[in-house]
Amino acid sequence: MSSTFGQVFRIHTFGESHGGGVGVVIDGCPSCIPLSLESIQQELDRRRPGQSEIVSPRNEPDTAEILSGVHDGLTLGTPIAIMVRNSDPRPDAYHEMATKYRPSHADYTYDAKYGIRAPSGGGRASARETIGRVAAAAVARQVLDAFHPGIEILAWVKSIQDLNATVDPATVTTATIESNIVRTGDPAMVDPMIDHIKSVRAKGDSVGGVIECVIRNCPPGLGEPVFDKLEADLAKAMLSIPATKGFEIGSGFAGTLLTGREHNDPFRMAEGAVRTTSNRSGGIQGGISNGENILFRVAFKPTATVMTSQKTVTSSGENTELAGKGRHDPCVLPRAVPIVEAMTTLVLTDHLLRQRCMDRRS
Amino acid sequence: MSSTFGQVFRIHTFGESHGGGVGVVIDGCPSCIPLSLESIQQELDRRRPGQSEIVSPRNEPDTAEILSGVHDGLTLGTPIAIMVRNSDPRPDAYHEMATKYRPSHADYTYDAKYGIRAPSGGGRASARETIGRVAAAAVARQVLDAFHPGIEILAWVKSIQDLNATVDPATVTTATIESNIVRTGDPAMVDPMIDHIKSVRAKGDSVGGVIECVIRNCPPGLGEPVFDKLEADLAKAMLSIPATKGFEIGSGFAGTLLTGREHNDPFRMAEGAVRTTSNRSGGIQGGISNGENILFRVAFKPTATVMTSQKTVTSSGENTELAGKGRHDPCVLPRAVPIVEAMTTLVLTDHLLRQRCMDRRS
Amino acid sequence: MSSTFGQVFRIHTFGESHGGGVGVVIDGCPSCIPLSLESIQQELDRRRPGQSEIVSPRNEPDTAEILSGVHDGLTLGTPIAIMVRNSDPRPDAYHEMATKYRPSHADYTYDAKYGIRAPSGGGRASARETIGRVAAAAVARQVLDAFHPGIEILAWVKSIQDLNATVDPATVTTATIESNIVRTGDPAMVDPMIDHIKSVRAKGDSVGGVIECVIRNCPPGLGEPVFDKLEADLAKAMLSIPATKGFEIGSGFAGTLLTGREHNDPFRMAEGAVRTTSNRSGGIQGGISNGENILFRVAFKPTATVMTSQKTVTSSGENTELAGKGRHDPCVLPRAVPIVEAMTTLVLTDHLLRQRCMDRRS
Amino acid sequence: MSSTFGQVFRIHTFGESHGGGVGVVIDGCPSCIPLSLESIQQELDRRRPGQSEIVSPRNEPDTAEILSGVHDGLTLGTPIAIMVRNSDPRPDAYHEMATKYRPSHADYTYDAKYGIRAPSGGGRASARETIGRVAAAAVARQVLDAFHPGIEILAWVKSIQDLNATVDPATVTTATIESNIVRTGDPAMVDPMIDHIKSVRAKGDSVGGVIECVIRNCPPGLGEPVFDKLEADLAKAMLSIPATKGFEIGSGFAGTLLTGREHNDPFRMAEGAVRTTSNRSGGIQGGISNGENILFRVAFKPTATVMTSQKTVTSSGENTELAGKGRHDPCVLPRAVPIVEAMTTLVLTDHLLRQRCMDRRS
Repeated sequence: MSSTFGQVFRIHTFGESHGGGVGVVIDGCPSCIPLSLESIQQELDRRRPGQSEIVSPRNEPDTAEILSGVHDGLTLGTPIAIMVRNSDPRPDAYHEMATKYRPSHADYTYDAKYGIRAPSGGGRASARETIGRVAAAAVARQVLDAFHPGIEILAWVKSIQDLNATVDPATVTTATIESNIVRTGDPAMVDPMIDHIKSVRAKGDSVGGVIECVIRNCPPGLGEPVFDKLEADLAKAMLSIPATKGFEIGSGFAGTLLTGREHNDPFRMAEGAVRTTSNRSGGIQGGISNGENILFRVAFKPTATVMTSQKTVTSSGENTELAGKGRHDPCVLPRAVPIVEAMTTLVLTDHLLRQRCMDRRS
Repeated sequence: MSSTFGQVFRIHTFGESHGGGVGVVIDGCPSCIPLSLESIQQELDRRRPGQSEIVSPRNEPDTAEILSGVHDGLTLGTPIAIMVRNSDPRPDAYHEMATKYRPSHADYTYDAKYGIRAPSGGGRASARETIGRVAAAAVARQVLDAFHPGIEILAWVKSIQDLNATVDPATVTTATIESNIVRTGDPAMVDPMIDHIKSVRAKGDSVGGVIECVIRNCPPGLGEPVFDKLEADLAKAMLSIPATKGFEIGSGFAGTLLTGREHNDPFRMAEGAVRTTSNRSGGIQGGISNGENILFRVAFKPTATVMTSQKTVTSSGENTELAGKGRHDPCVLPRAVPIVEAMTTLVLTDHLLRQRCMDRRS
Repeated sequence: MSSTFGQVFRIHTFGESHGGGVGVVIDGCPSCIPLSLESIQQELDRRRPGQSEIVSPRNEPDTAEILSGVHDGLTLGTPIAIMVRNSDPRPDAYHEMATKYRPSHADYTYDAKYGIRAPSGGGRASARETIGRVAAAAVARQVLDAFHPGIEILAWVKSIQDLNATVDPATVTTATIESNIVRTGDPAMVDPMIDHIKSVRAKGDSVGGVIECVIRNCPPGLGEPVFDKLEADLAKAMLSIPATKGFEIGSGFAGTLLTGREHNDPFRMAEGAVRTTSNRSGGIQGGISNGENILFRVAFKPTATVMTSQKTVTSSGENTELAGKGRHDPCVLPRAVPIVEAMTTLVLTDHLLRQRCMDRRS
Repeated sequence: MSSTFGQVFRIHTFGESHGGGVGVVIDGCPSCIPLSLESIQQELDRRRPGQSEIVSPRNEPDTAEILSGVHDGLTLGTPIAIMVRNSDPRPDAYHEMATKYRPSHADYTYDAKYGIRAPSGGGRASARETIGRVAAAAVARQVLDAFHPGIEILAWVKSIQDLNATVDPATVTTATIESNIVRTGDPAMVDPMIDHIKSVRAKGDSVGGVIECVIRNCPPGLGEPVFDKLEADLAKAMLSIPATKGFEIGSGFAGTLLTGREHNDPFRMAEGAVRTTSNRSGGIQGGISNGENILFRVAFKPTATVMTSQKTVTSSGENTELAGKGRHDPCVLPRAVPIVEAMTTLVLTDHLLRQRCMDRRS
């Protein structure tokens, strides 16, 4: 029951970091949507390791195969299964981990929950699990384009540790973000951020930061009142990404320092549409999109794997020490940008289709 | 599809702020759980308006009635329906709202979504909708006590605008929190916070703040990997509460300023159990509880209803102005404390029952 | 988890036969659908006891109240809660049942499952539970009329024990069916069926029979391949009605006696539409409606409550005897006709809305 | 949303008859369950074509691969993905079908629903889709054995057209059923049934029949009241199998000919357990198992593909004729026996795990 996401556009992911492969089954994708393997592969390439000098050097091509649900470049309306074979495993690097719990990883909690655990590579807790999400979101993106063209979803690195980028969510472009390997939207911060990540890695340490994401041209009326508020589903989507520790939308935690008069977003008519003249609501009011830019931030903790010795215990209950081995990201944020976009795309597509069921105007 | 929460312990809420009543149907509650109407009413009394001098003076007794699922003080295993009649409506106070969108409320987005809207009191967007959640959580609390005694769930006001409470999550007691009408856990901040709320109200303005919540004695192994991570479900639960803008767990956003070496929680054996010597993870690793205190914070924006004139538009698309009327909370946090606890209780109960399906040791 | 039906148009029923009341919460009803309390009450009146001389004389008005989700005769898009208070309870009639299991009732199995049981009237196993279904279907009917006018759903008594009605599914009218208290579609069988039911009741015995149901003017394309085939969801819906023992669609069990050549339905163009010249498929092929009449039959066993002594055991495990008391239907079929129609309406409405999510042409 | 089955033990199937492959993702399988590829392959071999002289000669090995969720012969608690590559496709055989609708197949309804259709082999409507179900049920079987050893699930051919087998559900063995290629439980009917199928095939025609299934040693208390009655979920499961037209449990349609006195099952204590002395209820009362044998029958229509010319229409709306080609089963029942068992196993496993959530005694 744990690996399904979405109500109408539903995805089911599978796969451990080591083993036969990882992937996703998408159920609820409308028929006759144009879909190419290339559009999926392109997104997978944005999240794969080995893509730049500041991410994990693990060299996996992550080549996708579509097993079902597509014919002659069009979706059939039936489940779309996408698989990526695992490759380049180095289980030796994980030998010590089989008996020693890595601090701030999921080794201990998996044992506590299941009484068993994939012995290498983190199993389902590996970042590799996100391949299925990214592949599914590439499909969802085509659905958005078919049903409501013009919706833009962009994420970027807002901060690395204490280095902050200055980015205008209304105008930042994918080209700017993708032009640098750290995936920030502020050209002035590219080199400082890269240098900082390299410096931290050289010490065997790691860093985290904040990713910001905007949805532009979102139609009003998406999201459900009460439990499935659009921001609630976004919060869940973001906190389901490994290494995340926080989510805030619009004014967020800083908004608690304002008074109501300062915080409220006045309404004004503009070109025949109801608009707000400020956007502390972050584009959502009462759980439902209001047509303004939807803007939120996600906190990522520093990578748990560090290359120095740390105190821990064995699975048989003895105190010991453990130092990280293997090939890891000193900072997950550059590769997490497409994952934040992917989860956002999945939430929005699901809510767009949910609204279609109900809306007599559709 | 929007008013259901939970996978196994499932609740379905209903009701507008004005109309016949509000309530909840709980499906998936185990049988033979002791349940009294008093235990439900007690929690409803903690969230009802008119309970103190710093909350809305709206005088509603919010008297609960159990319609089904309980016999002679024991649950039957069948759906438990709980209803609270609406009373003391003053639709006059909402007359202007029928045609003018209140800034930073859900009036406009409901119209955009549904093409219709309950004409007074906010409908499902009213805080009154949370009655069903609180009633359901009072039932869930009995399930926790029956299946896993000793789990404690406490929330308190951590800050009101820029007034910060100092509270030790490991030792704070319900008695301390409930001893003051602002529901903070820091006795030194009770008077300053109350004074500040009164002062803001006197100006027709409003304030927000942060609520902190701890789960103590949570067994390890609860929560699911991937999408239904325990923190992801908590994030969704919290962002589904009206007026929330952010969620963070453990180190949260501040954790992004640390390096991995500083951030990681070392494991150590203690009294035969695997424990961590710090808790920046906030009690959850890889989406699964690790037995430490689960600690998170929720940002609440200042109440949208303020008593001064604000710019807005009419439902027919004309610019206008609107000043708040009616009886409102100048600060939602004192009444939101039991709601945060309620949603936390619902998430935990659901995951406890989910784990029982799967666990051969149960 | 047991009292929810539907994927998009979702209903949650609650209530025991004795206790506060029974009802339903409908989540997923589109907004702006005209809805009157009268249209709901009218359907409830068709299923209530005391309506004629051949059903249970239990005199319950079953008066519905809409608690939420409707304003000024239009649905709001929010959950619609409908409640019917219980009345006229005679718990004395059930005194002996508290300790003796009624043969072929659910008393023993409820005890086996829950370890507890509503002590009188059958609890959730009472036919009274179907009130919520019928009320919800009256709402669904309005949705069908709004989104796809012209769909007709009619059920009738096809047989009572060995008395068989001759009915043409293509032409039978509601007026014919409702003109007689047994609700058969064959005027020639009205008196024989009524006489037979009275005769059986006079002996303290009971009878069952078969109800047939047709959906006319169903658009092609409804129903899902694989698990949620339209006939699979209809089968589940029908077998969820108390006292049912079988379901067959189109040619049904008799179809197993034909060869493929005899059984296949040839396609032919007619007035620009693809039609079949026979309908052994029963209007569904591969789980999806083909535009022909959907026709199925449901077997109802004889009422379990008979007025003569039967062998049984006590809840403490001793052999004993028990004779039926209270006011019961000697034959459930006349009152089951609106329930069969209700469940059919719920299945069809759900599939209609499901199709809207997916269909680019909608 | 159409390819998921189960609430707790959830399976998601994928794949068309032609294309990359077919398979299943199982989510909700408990951890530490012994699982071998052989146990899965063995069940797939029972349903594969080419296994005997009376089924389709299509020669597909249907070799399963486990992609995830299993390590060293134990389940990990994470999703188990199982894939079977497609092979031996002969799309030429389906050339004419691309434009002509096969009578009583799903070609037309898929076009009506999706506006597109896999051009060969029936896509998701192919019997090949059941591979995922059978593989998943082989896993479920291990869960049953681990949590509640001794449950037996056996299906057999009860009739082929008008040839009826005499089988005692209480004593029939898998060895008897598997000893003959038609999979009947009556040795005397083996040769007549085989001869009849061969004779029908020789004429280019096809036949159907009835499969009967028993669950022995089912614990009392499984199944949910109201919508998810055990017989309702079984009915849905059976009607979701291609070519099924009816389902009946216990006394079934014939039970409508009895009076209540004749039909009721008296209770009697036997070896300390509550038992019934007859079993017209078919092992389920009020939707919940009562500990007796659960016995039901499923009607299968004759195979739609026949080798003689039939009237039909083209996808562009012209009357035409079409004769079956390719390699098909003249009678689906021998291969449907393991599919009936598989769906039964899935329903029972799901309900067993559902009951564990709720049961304080588990």
